[in-house]
Amino acid sequence: MNVTELHRIDRTVKQWLQTSRNFILAKMNENLNVAEKSSRKDLVTNVDKENEKLLISKIRTFAPDSQILGEEGFGDQIRQTKGWVWVVDPIDGTMNFVKQRDHFAIMIALYVDGQGVLGYIYDVINDQLFSGGPEIGVFQNDERLAAPKNIGLRDGLVSLSGPMVIHDRFNFQKVAETSSGLRIYGSAGIEITHLLKGEIVAYVSYLKPWDFGAGKILAESLGLAVSTVDGQALDMLSSDFVMVATVQAQQDILPIIGSNV
Amino acid sequence: MNVTELHRIDRTVKQWLQTSRNFILAKMNENLNVAEKSSRKDLVTNVDKENEKLLISKIRTFAPDSQILGEEGFGDQIRQTKGWVWVVDPIDGTMNFVKQRDHFAIMIALYVDGQGVLGYIYDVINDQLFSGGPEIGVFQNDERLAAPKNIGLRDGLVSLSGPMVIHDRFNFQKVAETSSGLRIYGSAGIEITHLLKGEIVAYVSYLKPWDFGAGKILAESLGLAVSTVDGQALDMLSSDFVMVATVQAQQDILPIIGSNV
Repeated sequence: MNVTELHRIDRTVKQWLQTSRNFILAKMNENLNVAEKSSRKDLVTNVDKENEKLLISKIRTFAPDSQILGEEGFGDQIRQTKGWVWVVDPIDGTMNFVKQRDHFAIMIALYVDGQGVLGYIYDVINDQLFSGGPEIGVFQNDERLAAPKNIGLRDGLVSLSGPMVIHDRFNFQKVAETSSGLRIYGSAGIEITHLLKGEIVAYVSYLKPWDFGAGKILAESLGLAVSTVDGQALDMLSSDFVMVATVQAQQDILPIIGSNV
Repeated sequence: MNVTELHRIDRTVKQWLQTSRNFILAKMNENLNVAEKSSRKDLVTNVDKENEKLLISKIRTFAPDSQILGEEGFGDQIRQTKGWVWVVDPIDGTMNFVKQRDHFAIMIALYVDGQGVLGYIYDVINDQLFSGGPEIGVFQNDERLAAPKNIGLRDGLVSLSGPMVIHDRFNFQKVAETSSGLRIYGSAGIEITHLLKGEIVAYVSYLKPWDFGAGKILAESLGLAVSTVDGQALDMLSSDFVMVATVQAQQDILPIIGSNV
């Protein structure tokens, strides 16, 4: 895809995101309809669902031949990644959305023939949009981001799944203690924006495709390593234990996890 | 102290905080001089020290008969709390300051004869000042904050010290799992601002007087419970395991901690 075409798509997606943000902000003045999905800690609201429908309808009009993978199930059943595949998370960090009314993100990704082309993480309340891809670079709003410094585990802060730390999954307690400190923000999208800004050096959690679809594109475009927890390539259609890290922090963490996978 | 006098002090402290914020922002463009205090995870920088000197000099000029308790040791040795006692933390969350250049706070508190009168937590980068006290109310910048809802542990997010979760101190792993989710932000001041806004329902960590001095005043002014981890009154001159929580969350957490103190 040429750069002119990429910029045309980029401008269009940013318009959708503005519409979507305004929709969410308006809905936050009303009572939320909150339901549990797999557990009391896995929530969905009417706003997640309505926002996914809104974004999918925009995509269908703009690029009708696309496949769409949406968290709330209003997209397609996808079995192969040929052609254009959009990945949509209408509200990432729904628990934060419900309990904090802050620290959640809209995320959209575009893959073409399995390759990440454009990614978007939009911190709605703070109006910070992280966008871009390997061809056009990565931006925070209008400011181009430089690659984060390649800092190792010992000299950086890490973000790990809270339950996985508590149960010491993958030797995570040692990962946390080796680092300069543990942080937990509660939204994969928000955690990855901290990585893009160089504020943390690694993030590891169990993620579904819509949790990492956009972040993978943005992180890799800035030279960060994105893999499974044991350093293997990610399948963009599968859920997995995912590590996003500086190259050095990834190399520091893999031996600590070692045979605990 | 009458309300006119409180407002005069309030306006003055806010001027110091603006000066102090500008000083820190200017210094962030220079190289930091970072040193370890008790461990590699307990940092101090030249900016912590210089900002404490700046604030203490303001206080000495404004209220020369005061005692001053400062984190970096440029204040007084305080043995009793009679009269005016100022508590100063020039940069709370120094690790965040060094590694993230964000998510840290300037904190100032004024106690008179041991009673909290005015507290200030200033999120420097995001320019959000939490200020006030029992007489004049609590504000986020110019907006008065209402008391947070009295939400229990199960229905709210909690913030706990990362190392204490890892070592399951005080049965903290069960506290986290009983809650709706664990968050860790890495600055006592910032954690307490999340409580003031109702975004989390409890925060527990080992804190020194300058870590909780301002937060205790602001939290209690909004009806939150501030105590030691086993529900006892805090001594404002002593370090302790401190819990700041909604009344309901405190009641939910105390039996989980139970005999583990």
